[in-house]
Amino acid sequence: MTDLVERLRTGLPAEAVVTDQDVTASYARDMASFCTAGAPAVVVLPRTVEQVQHVMRTATALRVPVVPQGARTGLSGAANASDGCIVLSLVKMDRILEIDTVNRIAVVEPGVVNAVLSRAVAEKGLYYPPDPSSWEQCTIGGNIGTGSGGLCCVKYGVTAEYVLGLDVVLADGRLLRTGRRTAKGVAGYDLTRLFVGSEGSLGIVVKAVLALKPTPPRQLALGAEFPSTAAACDAICAIMEAGHVPSLLELMDRTTIHAVNEMANMGLPESTEALLLAAFDTADPAADLAAVGELCAAAGATTVVPAEDAAESELLLQARRLSLPAMERITGTTMIDDVAVPRSKLIAMLDGVAAIAARYDLVIGVCAHAGDGNTHPVVCFDAGDPDATRRARESFDEIMALGLELGGTITGEHGVGVLKKDWLARELGPVGVELQRGVKQVFDPLGLLNPGKLF
Amino acid sequence: MTDLVERLRTGLPAEAVVTDQDVTASYARDMASFCTAGAPAVVVLPRTVEQVQHVMRTATALRVPVVPQGARTGLSGAANASDGCIVLSLVKMDRILEIDTVNRIAVVEPGVVNAVLSRAVAEKGLYYPPDPSSWEQCTIGGNIGTGSGGLCCVKYGVTAEYVLGLDVVLADGRLLRTGRRTAKGVAGYDLTRLFVGSEGSLGIVVKAVLALKPTPPRQLALGAEFPSTAAACDAICAIMEAGHVPSLLELMDRTTIHAVNEMANMGLPESTEALLLAAFDTADPAADLAAVGELCAAAGATTVVPAEDAAESELLLQARRLSLPAMERITGTTMIDDVAVPRSKLIAMLDGVAAIAARYDLVIGVCAHAGDGNTHPVVCFDAGDPDATRRARESFDEIMALGLELGGTITGEHGVGVLKKDWLARELGPVGVELQRGVKQVFDPLGLLNPGKLF
Ligand SMILES: Cc1cc2nc3c(=O)[nH]c(=O)nc-3n(C[C@H](O)[C@H](O)[C@H](O)COP(=O)(O)OP(=O)(O)OC[C@H]3O[C@@H](n4cnc5c(N)ncnc54)[C@H](O)[C@@H]3O)c2cc1C
Ligand SMILES: Cc1cc2nc3c(=O)[nH]c(=O)nc-3n(C[C@H](O)[C@H](O)[C@H](O)COP(=O)(O)OP(=O)(O)OC[C@H]3O[C@@H](n4cnc5c(N)ncnc54)[C@H](O)[C@@H]3O)c2cc1C
Repeated sequence: MTDLVERLRTGLPAEAVVTDQDVTASYARDMASFCTAGAPAVVVLPRTVEQVQHVMRTATALRVPVVPQGARTGLSGAANASDGCIVLSLVKMDRILEIDTVNRIAVVEPGVVNAVLSRAVAEKGLYYPPDPSSWEQCTIGGNIGTGSGGLCCVKYGVTAEYVLGLDVVLADGRLLRTGRRTAKGVAGYDLTRLFVGSEGSLGIVVKAVLALKPTPPRQLALGAEFPSTAAACDAICAIMEAGHVPSLLELMDRTTIHAVNEMANMGLPESTEALLLAAFDTADPAADLAAVGELCAAAGATTVVPAEDAAESELLLQARRLSLPAMERITGTTMIDDVAVPRSKLIAMLDGVAAIAARYDLVIGVCAHAGDGNTHPVVCFDAGDPDATRRARESFDEIMALGLELGGTITGEHGVGVLKKDWLARELGPVGVELQRGVKQVFDPLGLLNPGKLF
Repeated sequence: MTDLVERLRTGLPAEAVVTDQDVTASYARDMASFCTAGAPAVVVLPRTVEQVQHVMRTATALRVPVVPQGARTGLSGAANASDGCIVLSLVKMDRILEIDTVNRIAVVEPGVVNAVLSRAVAEKGLYYPPDPSSWEQCTIGGNIGTGSGGLCCVKYGVTAEYVLGLDVVLADGRLLRTGRRTAKGVAGYDLTRLFVGSEGSLGIVVKAVLALKPTPPRQLALGAEFPSTAAACDAICAIMEAGHVPSLLELMDRTTIHAVNEMANMGLPESTEALLLAAFDTADPAADLAAVGELCAAAGATTVVPAEDAAESELLLQARRLSLPAMERITGTTMIDDVAVPRSKLIAMLDGVAAIAARYDLVIGVCAHAGDGNTHPVVCFDAGDPDATRRARESFDEIMALGLELGGTITGEHGVGVLKKDWLARELGPVGVELQRGVKQVFDPLGLLNPGKLF
């Protein structure tokens, strides 16, 4: 242990190697409930690629596991420490190295916060779409690690679509450059995309070339109230089938609406069973909203309220962004699920979750990136009550089983981490697991990178 | 050899196993110049997944290499046979299994021709964007194998963006299912994207789930004539920097224009140095074209001609689509390069190619997916003249070297195959090559799948 710290110090400035146990303990876990976490031996906060290489060389020499971390906003325990590990926090590598308006790319270090990048590119007329609700905290490195999504994905896709190339420090300290700075390229296997969503288990991302879009027109939103989740799901299918391309299409159920009102006094309509939010960033959003409003009405919406202006739109989106934190206040603890199903199966998913909630006598609220079929059932319970805790865990498993049964995936955007690793094998099947393990072995033969995650 | 054929026949109908050497010889190569090709031992044309599994099990048992083939329109020799191999042609597996308008996906067998799929989904109001100029011949399996692009990629991206999930028969005959049917998903490493562009070297794609878009409004194009390629490149940069999102942005140089006129009598303006084609499929394409026309004029365009209607637009696009076949007629043989550079480096690329042409005393015409910085320098020569042939090969290498020097890639969309495998290592570097070989080893430990390609 002292040997480890001493060797780390030979290639890192003093303040970049933290051993104070009160401090290191604060790096133990991300924001997921119910995931095991150990006590790190040391936390390192490098500022350069060379320093990261030094950390990995040391780890390999001494066979010490390494857990990479961004802002630790993850919801699957993928950034949780294991006992005696090196926590490798990338948050100090937070420089935006380049924003190139002709080639529409940004080159960034991994610790850049999503919102910081988004604002910086916006100033130059550009747009970095991936917008997890945690965007004011989470880092680009973490977004790449989890392959994160957000509200705009229904139109703009997820993080994977925006990562063109990476610099990666491998487990043994060597530097790998993947991908390209060009719009297109097919030279060899796509290792770039292999890193996206790999949860720090294949290498340490130290630089990323990201694709940008031109800033779209400001989006305008509407809210539509439905007497049943089934009617809201019908509207979603009708909107997508009619060929609309909303920049956002979100669903909040009654429980979620209530929780947000409780927390932020937003005056959302609690009398309805489901609130659908749709937005367009097209040339004529009002026309698109009018068409979508009609589809909502036809599907049974009781009220359709288009925002009058950008400020009203923002208020609706704010409500959606607050859903998860608001739900946490209901009973103190939540488990947030992240099951994505084909959007035609949303009704079955929501009905199934309601049945599971009833069977387990739990409050389970659902908000969803509905346009993508990506649901977030939020299981609320009192962590002090062992029986409630057991029921919460079991219901969580049933929700994932339901998702798979409906042709979905156990995780649309939050990742596998510790939380869902037993389930990953069920989704992938034995052949898939074997090949994935083989890939891991190629990049990290000693198994030092983020052990105990994914598999 | 007889053992091989006999064993193949035990799991395949008689007509699916072809040994007539006149016929098998016709499966020896794709459309690339200057790539070695061997004589296949046998050609198999399975119609079911089980038959493909039987072929791979047999190949593994007898240690016979397998070369998967689609329509053999490839331009890198990636589908070329090796001596004594099994050619595994997927063209008979050509069913569209499903088109789902609510979930906007198509499920297809690999032998479906790109244009057939495009037309089938168009009938349901949907759009499959990847549109290689060979779309009337090439197959979805081949498109996935090469990661192919086309004219619309500047707005809609390449094949990789549209492949959600795959069924793959592995080298040993096992079936692997990757990815998903949902819009989003991050369960484990992204093996789906690893297969895209892998040139048949990791497994046989037997089914694909493809993402679709709603049909956009019909695009409207303009042509702009420039007195120099530099002025045309300035216009391209100005268009992209101004935040336009054209559905097509193509460049043809003087040589290309001339060749197309010669072949198809199109009356294109031969007096100019470069013709830029831009199109928009937005709500108001005429307005977008007007704005782009102004940027072209500001960059020095001598004439800007917006198409009056869809028919005129189609004519302009047709000219672009004919570029490659037209160039082939100049001196009988061509080598088509496929170097992509950052679009700000297009000028340097085009100037450099002109200098190389002069130095080697060759005709080299360039057409380009200019909005993506993806150039196709076409080296024209007489294959009967050994000196011209040598100069052609050397100039080809210099073009790739130039592309790498400019921060580009040796292949934007045509792939590596046999043609560029020496260059792949230069682009990837030793660490990249080692890891890519490691990945190959995981999927194909005996090295039976498409040997001699990529590496
Ligand atoms: C209130 C709230 C709302 C959220 N909303 C969303 C949402 O809308 N959409 C969504 O997708 N997620 C959401 N999340 C989850 C979380 O914010 C995302 O997963 C985010 O991408 C994590 O980023 P991070 O910087 O916090 O990474 P961390 O949690 O620190 O790490 C995430 C993973 O990436 C790895 N990692 C981090 N940096 C690197 C690196 N440089 N190299 C290699 N591996 C690395 C870690 O090892 C870990 O496996 C939300 C979370 C909260 C708390
Ligand atoms: C006139 C012309 C214009 C062209 N224009 C373009 C263009 O604009 N953009 C572009 O990108 N390309 C273009 N190409 C190149 C070519 O058409 C593409 O590379 C196309 O994707 C090849 O498809 P194919 O069915 O002919 O595949 P093939 O050439 O038969 O095979 C291509 C590769 O895929 C592999 N493969 C095929 N099927 C499978 C399968 N089921 N499983 C696993 N591996 C498989 C093969 O082994 C090979 O490595 C053009 C070619 C020509 C002749």
